[in-house]
Amino acid sequence: MFARVDHLGVAVEDLDAALVLHEATYGMALAHREVIEEQGVEAILLDVGENHVELLRPLGPDTPVGRHLARRGPGLHHVAYQVADVEAALAALRDRGVELIDQAPRTGIRGSRVAFLHPRATGGVLTEIVQPAEGHRTQ
Amino acid sequence: MFARVDHLGVAVEDLDAALVLHEATYGMALAHREVIEEQGVEAILLDVGENHVELLRPLGPDTPVGRHLARRGPGLHHVAYQVADVEAALAALRDRGVELIDQAPRTGIRGSRVAFLHPRATGGVLTEIVQPAEGHRTQ
Repeated sequence: MFARVDHLGVAVEDLDAALVLHEATYGMALAHREVIEEQGVEAILLDVGENHVELLRPLGPDTPVGRHLARRGPGLHHVAYQVADVEAALAALRDRGVELIDQAPRTGIRGSRVAFLHPRATGGVLTEIVQPAEGHRTQ
Repeated sequence: MFARVDHLGVAVEDLDAALVLHEATYGMALAHREVIEEQGVEAILLDVGENHVELLRPLGPDTPVGRHLARRGPGLHHVAYQVADVEAALAALRDRGVELIDQAPRTGIRGSRVAFLHPRATGGVLTEIVQPAEGHRTQ
């Protein structure tokens, strides 16, 4: 069902410092930068092979990433797996009894279609499935 | 420097339940199972494309993963990036001022050579670099 790790989401307090670490120190290429108002974040995507790191700075404290930062500090926030068809994957997961946060896909970063599974159903791992937009598929 | 995400490490309380989720529900192939006494874990590797998920059950409470579980509960534990030459990558990261947990590589899962970077230096993300053993390289 999952083609690969699409990205790792990382909650950050200082987006520019995190960008320096990933771009200059780790040598990852900056792929995209976007404010996603609906999710309450400013996000940066970097390439690492066919995978990505997604740096997430909350737009305010009363956002999901803002609350995560307050509770746990900066660090790993979620994992996203790439799928070819997000509707089909979501239906299959629902059929297998997985509790969902999103009953239907919504728009994610860089025009992708995404849905989140509930961490209660996934061993505490906030898990996203991602169908990349047409121009950003690698298979 | 990093070829791809090698794996995501996930701290689990119930290894068999986590295996059912990843293998039966997500459809990932079980690749390897190993007790790594030195790291105080029983670990399972599953394939997701050329990436992996590494499920980690602590062998006792007084182990790194046992303490992580007590402090944060089950969930994401670390990210590992794949490198072609772990000695060279570690030297490059040291030269760029990254604080290291491991000054020299040690043996990781499935005969890999690994080293951990300090989360103080990586925005709170426990980060591992991995040079897979000969038979498990994909490039």
